[in-house]
Amino acid sequence: MAGTDKSQLDEDEATFKPPPLAVILVEPQMGENIGMASRAMLNCGLTDLRLVRPRDVWPNPKASNAASGADIVVDGARVFETTADAIADLSVVYAATARPRDMIKTVMTPRHGVPRLRREAETGQSCGVIFGGERAGLHNDDVALADVVLQAPLNPGFRSLNLGHAVLMICYEWSQVENTAPAEFLTDSHTRQATKGELVNFFERLESALDESGFLRILEKRPVMVRNIRNIFHRAQLTEQELRTLHGIVSALHPQRKV
Amino acid sequence: MAGTDKSQLDEDEATFKPPPLAVILVEPQMGENIGMASRAMLNCGLTDLRLVRPRDVWPNPKASNAASGADIVVDGARVFETTADAIADLSVVYAATARPRDMIKTVMTPRHGVPRLRREAETGQSCGVIFGGERAGLHNDDVALADVVLQAPLNPGFRSLNLGHAVLMICYEWSQVENTAPAEFLTDSHTRQATKGELVNFFERLESALDESGFLRILEKRPVMVRNIRNIFHRAQLTEQELRTLHGIVSALHPQRKV
Repeated sequence: MAGTDKSQLDEDEATFKPPPLAVILVEPQMGENIGMASRAMLNCGLTDLRLVRPRDVWPNPKASNAASGADIVVDGARVFETTADAIADLSVVYAATARPRDMIKTVMTPRHGVPRLRREAETGQSCGVIFGGERAGLHNDDVALADVVLQAPLNPGFRSLNLGHAVLMICYEWSQVENTAPAEFLTDSHTRQATKGELVNFFERLESALDESGFLRILEKRPVMVRNIRNIFHRAQLTEQELRTLHGIVSALHPQRKV
Repeated sequence: MAGTDKSQLDEDEATFKPPPLAVILVEPQMGENIGMASRAMLNCGLTDLRLVRPRDVWPNPKASNAASGADIVVDGARVFETTADAIADLSVVYAATARPRDMIKTVMTPRHGVPRLRREAETGQSCGVIFGGERAGLHNDDVALADVVLQAPLNPGFRSLNLGHAVLMICYEWSQVENTAPAEFLTDSHTRQATKGELVNFFERLESALDESGFLRILEKRPVMVRNIRNIFHRAQLTEQELRTLHGIVSALHPQRKV
């Protein structure tokens, strides 16, 4: 275009480098929304899209059309059977949701929470945000897998965002973080936060120990109790070393179970 | 929902009160995008939608469907023939565009520009943001009507936002301004900024005086010269009083023209 300041664009190109963020869509329904989410991601320099049980067959031509050229995102999207599988390699996962939850979990606005997540990324943690499907949003069990809930303070009478819009909002925040000031995190940069896979592995071991011990014997209460227990350990932001310690504790307390 | 903290919601309801912002879509093409923009607006507590020459007949059922319940926005949308008509009652208008422009105009990021616009609103100015259509974005003549250009620092290799996404981004920023610190503007709160209608009225008078005087006689240069002149006066952020002064100057310099 006439008059475009090429050197300014070059400078933008050099300075616009947000770290990777995985976007996980759980049970997305409409291909159009997956495509629009892909476009929003690439607008913000992000490409790691993961789909958990998409309603329609994947690949989905409607998604490709709506992506308007963000093929690198759509074509690279990976499909998973469970949310736990989709986030197994990530260390820090936030959940975007419009609804207040009956759950003890840190809730942050995107404006404050996303910069915090990005600081994690800049100290080497692999990060992601999970989004629920169009109809019902995230299941409580998915939210329980997250470290922090992101909830935007929007119109209380009309909160529900379109899925593509929700992805744009979070990715936009991610791309606009200016001063991530990672210095305060450097002191424990030798310890690595546990991955979600390691955490879920511990949860399952703990829960099976609790099943065997009879702690979870009241069947109708089990899901809520499991969720509450998972939330407690999530909030602790466990390192890999701490997780090994906890495994040791379970082994010690419940020795009849084979390790 | 079980466990929803009703008093927290009541508090949200009481504190979520962004001032009005007019959203002006110039030559929007797809009803779906108008509907999605409407939904995004209401998510952010905004309802004043204005359409300039929408491609399809209005009202448009596709817009209503895509609005997902934001009927108050879609049903209340007003249609105008020109951008100047659509913004005639507004005092401060910013233009959202993805492309750098060959124009002397203040460019701000939404992160910094939108809070500035909201401070104008909070001192009583009527504010709006204009967005271009899907295919080509805003015409330069529309951008020339704006006080400031809003341009998000996004992926330089994939800048173009979906129209609904662009509206969401700006309205979201509008709704998230936390500390608008209007104090610095209070000192001139007795003077009122000129409306766009008053400004365009002055432009047209000035340009006709310049036509008559022969200043704009080279026909192929006229559009660019007119645009440059308009930009100069836009940047001045004229008050209604200053505009009357300028009218007086034109009358004085070009007395043969009837007032």
